[in-house]
Amino acid sequence: LIISNIYHGNFINITNCHDGIGQLQFKIVLEEELQSKISFLHFTILPPETSIGFHKHEDSEEIYIILKGSGEVIVNDEKHIVVQGDVILNRKGSSHGLKNINRENLEILVIEGKF
Amino acid sequence: LIISNIYHGNFINITNCHDGIGQLQFKIVLEEELQSKISFLHFTILPPETSIGFHKHEDSEEIYIILKGSGEVIVNDEKHIVVQGDVILNRKGSSHGLKNINRENLEILVIEGKF
Repeated sequence: LIISNIYHGNFINITNCHDGIGQLQFKIVLEEELQSKISFLHFTILPPETSIGFHKHEDSEEIYIILKGSGEVIVNDEKHIVVQGDVILNRKGSSHGLKNINRENLEILVIEGKF
Repeated sequence: LIISNIYHGNFINITNCHDGIGQLQFKIVLEEELQSKISFLHFTILPPETSIGFHKHEDSEEIYIILKGSGEVIVNDEKHIVVQGDVILNRKGSSHGLKNINRENLEILVIEGKF
């Protein structure tokens, strides 16, 4: 039985993720276990005023799922405020970034798909 | 900007999902929008005493993410109690099912990956 938990286990600190601001906490929920074209499922915590920098997906698409908190997402040239339950798709060839604009942690799931 | 919300929008009622018990509420969060080998991202609510019946994934793998509530998952011949934050992988060729064993709704994300 392959089971993991988003909230338990080892978190890794990442500084300036994709040239973003500050230090994030990051956990690989599923990656090596996956056999399909789903590359990974990651859980990332963005403390207040931190961000994932704007970056391009050349050969994959990626989904952000907002589990808690709120933020400002950028996809290509569009900015949008995102809140709990929002799901943002970044298609192949598109660029995205995310910033925590709130006083509480911003928690997200990140899922990447290959072609 | 391709954005959706897990909790808002149209839910569909499904009765006896994969020969399971009772009526579930189901929402397609992302499906047609996806271009990679991620087939879909669905949000499913299992009211108390309902279930997704035991079924096999012949050509895909599928991930359940428990957002709220608790349940009993079966993968092949193994049963396990799952709670908020648990992530359960069902590999290609494996079978799984899920039952709500609690008095509150069980909310899950379902992601399928192709090969």
